[in-house]
Amino acid sequence: MKIQAVKGTRDFYPAQMAVRNFIVDGWKVASIRNGFVEYDGPIFEYLQMYQVKSGDEIVEQLFNFEDRGGRHLAIRPEITPTLARMVNQQINALSRPIKWFSVPRLCRAERPQKGRLREFFQWNIDIIDVDDVLADAEVVYCSLDYLRSLGLTSKDVVAKISSRRLLAALLTNIGIVEDKLETLYPILDKKAKIPIEAFIEMLEKEIDDAGIIQTIVKLMDIHSVDEIPSLVELNEDAQEALDELILVFTHLKNMGVQDFCRFDMGIVRGLAYYTGMVFEIHDVAGDLRAICGGGRYDNLLSDFGGPKVTATGMGMGDAVLEILLREKGLLTDDSLPVQTLDYFVACVDADLYDKAIEITAAIRQQGHSANLTYKTNALKKQMKAADAMNAAKCIIVGGELKEDGKLVVKDMKSGEQKLVDAATFLK
Amino acid sequence: MKIQAVKGTRDFYPAQMAVRNFIVDGWKVASIRNGFVEYDGPIFEYLQMYQVKSGDEIVEQLFNFEDRGGRHLAIRPEITPTLARMVNQQINALSRPIKWFSVPRLCRAERPQKGRLREFFQWNIDIIDVDDVLADAEVVYCSLDYLRSLGLTSKDVVAKISSRRLLAALLTNIGIVEDKLETLYPILDKKAKIPIEAFIEMLEKEIDDAGIIQTIVKLMDIHSVDEIPSLVELNEDAQEALDELILVFTHLKNMGVQDFCRFDMGIVRGLAYYTGMVFEIHDVAGDLRAICGGGRYDNLLSDFGGPKVTATGMGMGDAVLEILLREKGLLTDDSLPVQTLDYFVACVDADLYDKAIEITAAIRQQGHSANLTYKTNALKKQMKAADAMNAAKCIIVGGELKEDGKLVVKDMKSGEQKLVDAATFLK
Repeated sequence: MKIQAVKGTRDFYPAQMAVRNFIVDGWKVASIRNGFVEYDGPIFEYLQMYQVKSGDEIVEQLFNFEDRGGRHLAIRPEITPTLARMVNQQINALSRPIKWFSVPRLCRAERPQKGRLREFFQWNIDIIDVDDVLADAEVVYCSLDYLRSLGLTSKDVVAKISSRRLLAALLTNIGIVEDKLETLYPILDKKAKIPIEAFIEMLEKEIDDAGIIQTIVKLMDIHSVDEIPSLVELNEDAQEALDELILVFTHLKNMGVQDFCRFDMGIVRGLAYYTGMVFEIHDVAGDLRAICGGGRYDNLLSDFGGPKVTATGMGMGDAVLEILLREKGLLTDDSLPVQTLDYFVACVDADLYDKAIEITAAIRQQGHSANLTYKTNALKKQMKAADAMNAAKCIIVGGELKEDGKLVVKDMKSGEQKLVDAATFLK
Repeated sequence: MKIQAVKGTRDFYPAQMAVRNFIVDGWKVASIRNGFVEYDGPIFEYLQMYQVKSGDEIVEQLFNFEDRGGRHLAIRPEITPTLARMVNQQINALSRPIKWFSVPRLCRAERPQKGRLREFFQWNIDIIDVDDVLADAEVVYCSLDYLRSLGLTSKDVVAKISSRRLLAALLTNIGIVEDKLETLYPILDKKAKIPIEAFIEMLEKEIDDAGIIQTIVKLMDIHSVDEIPSLVELNEDAQEALDELILVFTHLKNMGVQDFCRFDMGIVRGLAYYTGMVFEIHDVAGDLRAICGGGRYDNLLSDFGGPKVTATGMGMGDAVLEILLREKGLLTDDSLPVQTLDYFVACVDADLYDKAIEITAAIRQQGHSANLTYKTNALKKQMKAADAMNAAKCIIVGGELKEDGKLVVKDMKSGEQKLVDAATFLK
């Protein structure tokens, strides 16, 4: 019986595993450098958890199932609801502010395409209980700090930043009722991804005033905060939201990443739970989906039955990132540290094989990595096996051991051989 | 709305995450030391894959679901079928023998109890295409090597080793037909876990000869290979299987772990696919479930539509292991390296906050981990925050910076303070 992998999933053979480890380990290092501490949750949760606040797109893409106990469960499509649940559960025991990161495996029943898989890894960083845009700036900074550490520059990637709060204030100002906002966000979020006609058509289904639609279209094209007042009158709330957003940029400048950052009204984010700053990092060329995205979500913890505690965070998937790194030549199959072996133990005399087994175990006991030949066949074949395992050195167990207790140690790079006392390896 | 975690899953708060990382990182180090290379597969596969050869127990415990495309899928309850599928797919491209390891997250719909969770991590090591009991011995050795590295001794853990091949030969010898063997294995595997009456009752359902049942009961109690010939006559196949098993013990002796190893006919393993040596490692006291288990499974790759390639391997879960380590005092909440922070940047003057932001970014740029205070409140409160983050040093941004461009650097352990030039931190 021949069974295939499910479409949209990945097999991580050692070469692909090395890429995944390179990405995930880099996320961990950047998180720790920026003062985040690691957490994780279960791979499945109650289905209901994702139906509350994640937005329709996520709900449509759930892998859900019923267990034998009749519970409705779902494989996690994101970790933020889990984070909210976990923080709420221990809210009085946890020292705040909370700066946590995670690198969860996530599943979404999407149509597999370039940069979109049904199973992927996502770096998440979140700052909880800091009601200050400095935390928003820190999230953007940390994301850029990681990307910069890979060798990406402001010529490669750009952080496009906006504010849900500002957008809400502006939309309300031009006559959109508050109840309508949540329906509009996913549409506005699509602006950059679909033809303008399709965008207008989607708006027309929700708004029957052509003038308002036209203002929205203009508004979504704004790329400088200075243009806003000329288009929409700012009330107090909008002005405050704008000032906050400007402060985010000031912080990012102080952090030395202003070259990477720009305002973009078109950044809305699909998820329903954002309340303040929102951002996405894109490749400058604009060929790929967003590398990462996030923002402030001040109501999620209370939506999940917890206290009113503010939060801001970001998620970065591994799929688009890998494509970008390969396109930029920053990740090649040769550039990764291939797993190496300290010692390969060769043996050309069946009588000495027990000794070779003993020596291999002794080398491992000393903390070195070692493999033993499984056959006492021709030395040439064993050397080939050693090369296939990227062995740095080869121990040859043969006549020299019988005659005067010596082992041949061969440096696989230089080819240099020397005799050492077997006792060295057996103590 | 308050949502709970699903019973049998775990939330990994930072303290629990540190335990998980301690275990998983240790598995990785031991794997690499023993010459294994990392791989992984998808978290879900076609349901069918687990219905082929995993045995009834696994099939009953599957979390399975249907996706929108009508595919019958299941969250992986073990990774061995995935391994077989992956190796088969690339059998001609992979250099053999294959020594791979993985640390998959697995899910089983079991009733949660001590050492059994519905979601857990499992270390897997496998050696493929080595038709030699040395590979079996290596798998046992590597498992023990890891446990020994944690500080466990032969007074704490024991590797109980037997052979499916030997068992099959002996059962056939005493009159069991071959077709019956697969039905008997899960029953024989339960021997040590249930009362003798219940065991006999289960056998009686399958075998109607009381003499055979009695011989089986005696056979399963054997703890030395020398006792076997007195109980059952050995035909050629049984003798060969016995010789092989004795050779496993010889290899383990040469590897220096004989103190940990003993023969136990009662080790059968529940999974259907074993064909040769089988083993389990238990706590010596016998209070817990098996710490790990594995064995040779020479037919699995061909059962999955691949060529006839032999294999042997082992799986070790994290749940029982953690219980054992805590019981033995080898893992305490204080023994783990708590995540520390290189620098906490305190700021007592709101006018200097921008400078503090800049300094924090500069420290991170240099590769050190750093956090910044979110409030320019009393220094005492900020020092408390620094302590909560296990900060090694504290940078105090205050009057000294304004006056003569100096920062106060406080060693949090000794309390010692010194002044350094701010430029040092900003270059």
